[in-house]
Parts: sequence; structure tokens; C-alpha cells
Amino acid sequence: MRQLFPGQGASRGNALGRARVRQPHALEVAEERIARSAVPAEIVRLHEAIGMVRTELRDLRSRLHGALANEVGEFLDLHALLLDDPELLQGLDGLITRERYGADYALRMQRNRLAAVFESMDDPYFRSRVEDIDHVIGRIHAALHRHDAQVTGLAGEIIVTDALAPSEVARLHARGVLGVVTAGGSMLSHSAILARSLHLPLVVGAAQALAQVNDGDVLMIDGTTGLVIVDPAADDLRAHRERVREGKRERRQLHRLRREPSRTLDGVDIRLYANAETREDVAEAHALGAAGVGLYRTEFLFLQRDELPSEEEQFVAYRDLVLGLTGRIATIRTLDVGADKADGSGLALPDEPNPALGVRGVRLALRQRGVFNTQLRAILRASGYGPLRILLPMVARREDLVATRRLLRQAAAKLRREGHAVADGIALGAMIEVPAAAIALPALIDLVDFISIGTNDLVQYLLAADRGNDALQELHSPLHPAVMQLLHQVLTTAQAHGRPAAVCGEMAGDPLFTPLLLALGLEEFSVHPGTLLEVRRELRAHDLSALRRRAPALLRARDRAGIERWLASVPSTVA
Amino acid sequence: MRQLFPGQGASRGNALGRARVRQPHALEVAEERIARSAVPAEIVRLHEAIGMVRTELRDLRSRLHGALANEVGEFLDLHALLLDDPELLQGLDGLITRERYGADYALRMQRNRLAAVFESMDDPYFRSRVEDIDHVIGRIHAALHRHDAQVTGLAGEIIVTDALAPSEVARLHARGVLGVVTAGGSMLSHSAILARSLHLPLVVGAAQALAQVNDGDVLMIDGTTGLVIVDPAADDLRAHRERVREGKRERRQLHRLRREPSRTLDGVDIRLYANAETREDVAEAHALGAAGVGLYRTEFLFLQRDELPSEEEQFVAYRDLVLGLTGRIATIRTLDVGADKADGSGLALPDEPNPALGVRGVRLALRQRGVFNTQLRAILRASGYGPLRILLPMVARREDLVATRRLLRQAAAKLRREGHAVADGIALGAMIEVPAAAIALPALIDLVDFISIGTNDLVQYLLAADRGNDALQELHSPLHPAVMQLLHQVLTTAQAHGRPAAVCGEMAGDPLFTPLLLALGLEEFSVHPGTLLEVRRELRAHDLSALRRRAPALLRARDRAGIERWLASVPSTVA
Repeated sequence: MRQLFPGQGASRGNALGRARVRQPHALEVAEERIARSAVPAEIVRLHEAIGMVRTELRDLRSRLHGALANEVGEFLDLHALLLDDPELLQGLDGLITRERYGADYALRMQRNRLAAVFESMDDPYFRSRVEDIDHVIGRIHAALHRHDAQVTGLAGEIIVTDALAPSEVARLHARGVLGVVTAGGSMLSHSAILARSLHLPLVVGAAQALAQVNDGDVLMIDGTTGLVIVDPAADDLRAHRERVREGKRERRQLHRLRREPSRTLDGVDIRLYANAETREDVAEAHALGAAGVGLYRTEFLFLQRDELPSEEEQFVAYRDLVLGLTGRIATIRTLDVGADKADGSGLALPDEPNPALGVRGVRLALRQRGVFNTQLRAILRASGYGPLRILLPMVARREDLVATRRLLRQAAAKLRREGHAVADGIALGAMIEVPAAAIALPALIDLVDFISIGTNDLVQYLLAADRGNDALQELHSPLHPAVMQLLHQVLTTAQAHGRPAAVCGEMAGDPLFTPLLLALGLEEFSVHPGTLLEVRRELRAHDLSALRRRAPALLRARDRAGIERWLASVPSTVA
Repeated sequence: MRQLFPGQGASRGNALGRARVRQPHALEVAEERIARSAVPAEIVRLHEAIGMVRTELRDLRSRLHGALANEVGEFLDLHALLLDDPELLQGLDGLITRERYGADYALRMQRNRLAAVFESMDDPYFRSRVEDIDHVIGRIHAALHRHDAQVTGLAGEIIVTDALAPSEVARLHARGVLGVVTAGGSMLSHSAILARSLHLPLVVGAAQALAQVNDGDVLMIDGTTGLVIVDPAADDLRAHRERVREGKRERRQLHRLRREPSRTLDGVDIRLYANAETREDVAEAHALGAAGVGLYRTEFLFLQRDELPSEEEQFVAYRDLVLGLTGRIATIRTLDVGADKADGSGLALPDEPNPALGVRGVRLALRQRGVFNTQLRAILRASGYGPLRILLPMVARREDLVATRRLLRQAAAKLRREGHAVADGIALGAMIEVPAAAIALPALIDLVDFISIGTNDLVQYLLAADRGNDALQELHSPLHPAVMQLLHQVLTTAQAHGRPAAVCGEMAGDPLFTPLLLALGLEEFSVHPGTLLEVRRELRAHDLSALRRRAPALLRARDRAGIERWLASVPSTVA
């Protein structure tokens, strides 16, 4: 039977496929006692689940606008209050600690207790509150079992689940999954950003769908409108085909933008670079009219092999990059690995308890000068074949740049003595991703020719939240006032010193953030070729001076909600 | 035979004991080939060692002043140049890669090659350069074997070694070692800071001592003057006894300061709190005239046990703290653990790849509300017995404070309903240690009553350098312009909003940093009782307004050397 469920479009695109439902565990549990030694872990498990539900409710609440906010909002508030109710919480802890029930059974007992209290009341309003208790208990229960099973999925399927971890997005996409529907989630979550970058259709906030869809149902989803249809009728299928055609028309229109300038409505040219790694990326960057390659990662030359790449092998790779760009500039980032990535490479690095805060990037390069020198030589030799710039990762201080410039000078002099062509005045840039370098940029900017802001790592360090940790997905977000202020400050400093400044993190490649970055003063983006045209379309739809006038309002935002309101207030061409 | 070696005093105190020498591995190596698969790791090992030597040379260089700088400095510069010489480096790499020699043997071969070249020259100047090569090769060789053996040491011994890792300092102190002499090192290193905080006498930069002292020699060291004497004569022993007496006199004088105000020369009262954990700490804080306890860590209640502490157990601990302070304020920090510390506690936390960037502090508390609520209840109940404040670790944003304030309100209301005495208007403060909170402080300061800056973690995140990683000892330093600027900015913001602001990291407890913190605007310190009087003595020796006038010069420093110059230019009472 045809059914239609509303959600919120979070990643454009239409999909038609069979549903694969990851149903939260049903609340049917037997009375089983747990071992005394398992009690603390069970309490922790329960409170972790309650924490997840709290986040879900807040996310849901923040997405409500207009009439819906009044209607549904008060229920959500009530549910959030229930969740914080010490009666509920301590009753649960007591059942686990004293009775040694598992969290599931304790939840059921507590539900029955509270329901009995409410149902015994005369007031029909209170009697009906049992529904709310069931809703909240059900959510906690679902969260308890969220990590019991990973979402699996196969080509041709549409996944219906309660929540989606960032780590799952790429995996599902790689398996050929057509789209994802989640009961919770937000279009500004890290998962949604990743889904958009992979063009994986995603509908969030479709709680009803999760409750009603069955495994194997035929499902139609629209990542723009957020509609989810089960057992679509003939009309729906016609509409779907039409939307798919529309999508193709849109892509053709987008495709036409490859010859158009990256120019704002008020006529300001923005430099739009591509992040590229493979030969195909480079060719695509070229075909899309990128200003050049803004980020060429060199890790692939070092990883998944036993020996270090020779100077010659690296030289050939860099030379081919430069040749492939036929005169547009190539920005080559020197090796950026740490102990967490180097396994199995020729780089034997010691284990570190916190590799993200360890010996990596330029720190590693300056400690392993033979490796660094070989790479610098290869890059310098490639400079004879076309324009390139060198970009240093993890710069933290002046000293890093002083040391690198000295090595570069020595290497260039030696190469020239050996008879190699080395370009004059090769630009040296710094990744701005270590907070200290961003804050004290004026103290080192005289030593760089350009900067590239790595927002992924910068946000990770600023928030002290590992970007690979799914549990911190909500905290690891650029939507923090400190990120806004620091980006603005860095861009202003760079401009004052006449140094080009790009952003090359995920933020730059997501059209949702384009107006925000333009408002903060960004004039160079480096993005994956897959989203380059969308970013170009987006920035062509904005009046730069109007956006800049709104920057003070953005910088006044005191929390995530304030930044989201600013974003929502900017007219955007992207769903 | 009596011998005397000069070094630099890095941690005051005199010691007389038997030498335990950790001699760097001697350069006697046989020709042995290594497996092809071991080649990359061997090259990495070599370059790590070269990196260490480079740091040593730079440290040595930066410590030279006056005549010594001219005399010795040029040799060090020459050695640093040799170290960066591509001939040397690539020759070494080649010997390992092509000949499959181990790094040790390759070093020896390379030494002989270069020596032959120099020795064949007519110019006697060049012939004498062989010495320099030997020096540099010797240093690399020592560094190659630095981590072969840990420094061990026993009560009554004085350790003589080439370098000292921060992780070794506390261990040596706990084993009853009397003092340490290092060939390299700096008085501003993390190891030196730790040695001072433990009152472990330390002499750095005593390269000659390492070369000449033998295991078991009787050794006399002076952590103020930096003198190291082997086989002291009768006069030396008399002088030692006199200095020990002087030390005691000084401690008595220091002890008299326990009744003196923490007041600068120009009459400004500084609040000097104690960090305290045990009953003894609290008693000592009280005896020393601390303004109160500025940091009471509660982790000890949770760790090394299987079950979570009950509300009652926590309440008793907090109540006793408050009672022990007889009216001075107690600042209780809520639980600050993450996955790296929680092993074996009742807190079952998931493993995290980067626990320092993981779910910890207030993030954990807000996810495990049962645990958090129990702690808040216990603290609130203790508030009936005397003044206390609540300090939240790892605050990153407004949202953390909004959620906590709500829980606090609910818990207080419930406790009052239950008949407990709960003080009104208990102050809630935030640890400022996550960079985002420091940068965007104006966006959240209305939600806190006070702040405490945790410089250890703040520096770790700002520099993206794990403070527990010995390899990053030099990078993990507060002597970075970004740290200066951010501290100044945070203190200025706090003052503008009338919020008291303290520093409770290691910086606050080291008198070496006292003038710097005063110049940046700090008026509250929270330090371990063991160094409280030294900090008081230091701040009583400074004119606050004169220091503040020098703040602009400090904020203009562009690198570590600039900040060190500023520090050196401030007259200090501490060696």
C-alpha cells in the first residue's frame, strides 16, 4: 500500500530501490539478572544511550520552524524534560544496581511503574502522558542497541535507519547503496556533509518512515524535498522518472558552468582550485576550469608499500602533475602522515597514544630530513616543467618555516650545481590547521607566500574533538563562534599582508557553507572536483559585498544555533 | 682526583652522592649487514637521531651569552651546518640502502670517508675540521642509542645522562634519586619545569661532566650555580655543608612567608590558591596561607576501583574538604577523565584512537548524567558546610554550560525538597583549556562566575602536541606567541566582565613564569602547595605596574627565542 512520509532533504538526488531497514531493537526483553561486576558498565551503557537521545531531541527541536515549532516543539520539550527527570534516571540506576537487571529490562520495569502512576490519575491529561513516557523509553531503547549492528547494505538498496555515523557514509556509498533515510540527524551534521560530497541522496528526520517501512519494501526518496514514498504508485514512478530527468538536466546545466568564470553576482572573481590526487582528478580539474590544483596530497606515494619512494619516482609524479595542468598552478603538499597512517609504509614511526597530536606533517619532515630532502628535491626538479607551489602541513611556528626555507635553499643550490633546471622564487605556503599558527599568524606570515586553511584539522584541534570519533560528530563542527572568529581573523591578516589564502577542508567543498566563507572574507576555495561546479554555481548566486556586510552578524553569533540562523537567513540556491 | 665541570643550574638545590652514569653507546661497531626489509626502518632510526642532535645543538646555542657565545657559538653553528649537509646525509642513506649497513656502521664509514678528505688537505685549518666531524658523528651516535636503556637510579645516586625525558623526572624522584646532571637540555624544558616542581636538583648543559664522570664517582652538584664537582676535596665538602645550611636558612625564610600577604612590590594583592587532592594537601594549603583551594581534582574518587563512588562517599569527601578549609573557598572540579584514564574504574569507556581529543570532562558528564548528577548532588550537599565553587573541565561552548546549569538547578531543587541544606548562588566556573572556549570566551562568559585556565591542556591543543609525548617536549611549550596572545586576551575579557580568572596549569606553579603571567594580566594563581611559597616570594619581588607596562613587548615576540629574551630581561629572584 502506498504510503508517504515526510523528512528533510539533506543531500540532493532521487533514488528508487528496495528498503533495507536497520530497525532499532524491539522492546521485548526477558527478566535476566546481570553479574554484579557488570553493573557499572551497564549503567554507563544506559547513560550513553540517554545522552544520544538527548542529542536527537535537541537536533529535532532545532529543525522545527513556524507552525510545526509550536505544535511538535512542546512535546519534544516535554520529552527532553522527562529525560532529565531525576526520578526516571535514579529509578533506572537503582534497578540496575540493586536488582541487577540489564538496562533493557530496567527500562521496561521503570516504564510500567511510571505508567501505573500516571494511569491512576483522575486527570485525563495526565493519563495520556503515558504515551510520552513510551516515546521516551522507546527512544532510549533504540539508542541502547544502535551500535549492536552496523548498517550493511548492498547495491540497489536504500538504507532506513535511526542514525548514521560519518564512518558509515563512505562505506555505504562504496557498496553501491542508492540512498539513506534516517529517523534523526541534521543536514549540518558531519554525515550529511559527507553524503553531499559523495552525492549520496540522504533524507534526515524521517522518524515515521523508520517506524513503518519494512525490509524489502520498494522505496522512493527525494533528497531535495525530503519525501519518502513506500510502494510508489504509477504516478509516483512517473514523477520519479521526471525528477531523474530533471536531475540530469540540472547536471547538464551545471556542466555548462565549467566554461563560466567563478564570479560572484557583483562581479568579483573567486579562485576555485581543485584538490587532486590521481591523474583522473587532475584531468577533471582541468576540464572543469579549475584555477589549478590547490591541494595535491603526496601521501599516496608513501603508503601501502614497504620502501620509501625514490627521488626519481616522486619527480615523475610531480612533473606529470605539472604537465597535466598546462600552465595552471600546482600546489604540492609535502608528506602529511603521522603514526596513525604510516603502518606498512617505509616510515617506521613509534606508536603514539594520541597520533593526531603527535609527530606528523612538517614535524616529521624536519626530524627525518633524508626523507624530506628527497621530496623537496623531487618537487624542485618538477618546477622546471611548469608553475608549482609547495605547501607545508602542520606548521606551528616560525621555527618550522625558517628550517624549511633553509633546506629548500640548500636543495635548490645543490640541484642547480648538478645541472637541473629549478624555477626561481618557488612559493612556499603553510597549511593553517594548528590553532597556534592561526592565532599567531602575524608572527609568521612574512615567511610564507600563501596560506591554505585546513578546516578539518583546525576544527578538530580548536574543539579538542577527534574528527574520526563518531561519538563527537556533533561537537566536531565548524559551526562554533571560535571557528568563525578565527577564520575571519586569519583571512583579514592574510589580506593585510597581501598573501593569498584558501580553504581546503570539507567546508570549502560544501555549497551550504559557501556564503558563510564568502562573508568571512574567503576568496580562494580548493575543493574536490566532484563538487567544484556546485560551489561555482553557489558563489555565482551571491552578491559578495552584501554577504560581507552581513559578516558582523555572523561574528556576533554566540552558539551553533546562532550560526545556523545566520545560514538560514542567507538565500541559497542549494536545497 | 678532584675535577670541576660547569653546567647551568636548572632546578635549585645541592646534592652529594654517588654518580650513576648513563653513558651514550660507544662508537665501536662491527660490520654487519641488515636485512633488506629492515632498510627503511634503519634510515628512519638514523634520521630521528639526527633530528635529536639538531635540537640539542639549537638548545645549546640558545643558552650561550656574552663571550661564550662568540667562542663556542661558531663551532656549534658549524656543527649544525655539518648536520644539514646533504653530502653527509645522502652518503649515510646510501650506505644503508645500497650496502645494507646498520646506521652505526654507516656512521663510522662515513666518518672515515670525510676524515680522509679533510686530512688530505694542505690547509691545517681544514685538517683540524676532522675534530668537528667526530664531534657531530659522536652526537648522532649517542642519540641513536638514547632510547636503548632507560635511566635507572637508586636512592642516594646522582644521575649523569645526555638527556632527560619528562616522563623520567617523576620516576627518578620517586626512587629517591638526589639530583640529575644532563649534557644537553634547557632550563625552560618541560623536564626542567617538572624537576623544579619536585625540588629535584638539576644541572643542564654539562657535556663535559658526561664525558668524564664514571659510574660510582662521588659527585657534588649545585642546581643554582650549575657546578658539578667530582671527588670533592675537604673544602668542597665544607662548602657543600654550608650551602645545605644556606638552603635550610632559605627554606626557613621562605617558611616565614606563609604568614605574609601575596602582594606585589607596588602593593597589589594577588590571590594565591593551592591545588589540592589529599587531606594533607588541604592542611598544607591552609598552613601556607593559601586563599583557598583553586583546584580540587575529584578523579581519585573514581579511579583504581571497580564501582562508582556513591553520593554519600563523595559527599563526605567534599564536606571534609570544605570543613578543612575553615571558611576559605574550595573549588571542586567535576570528574575529568577520558578513555585513557578510566581503565579499571567503574566507568566503562570505549577505546578511542585519540583519547586526548575524545569524550572526556564535561562531555562525558553530559553523556552519563546519572554519574554527573550523583556528583553534583554530593557537591551541593557539601555546600551547606562552607563556601565552595564548582569547576567544569573541557568546556567548549555555551551549550555545555546551559545544560550543566539546568542540571544544577534541578538537583538543588530536589535536594531542598528532600530537606538538605544547599547554599544559594553557588559559583559555577569553566576550565579554559579547549582553544575554542578561550577564543570565543566573550560568547560564553555570561554563563560562568569565574574561570580557571588549564595551561597544560590549552597548550597541548593550541600546538597540537600531546603533552605526554616525550618526542614533542620542545614543541609542547607555553613559550609560543599564540599562547601569550590568547592568555592576554582571555584575562582581558575576564576582567572586562568582572569574572575572576586563575591559571592552574604547571606554568602557574613555576616561579620562572610568574613575571610573565603577571605581565599578561593574571591576578589569581592556583599552584601545588609544594611551590606556593616560592611563587609568593617571586610575586612579592615584582612591581606589577612595571611588568604590565612591558606586556606589549612580550606580545610582540614572534618566536620562542623572543619570549625567552623577554623573560631573561626581567629581573627575577629565582635562579
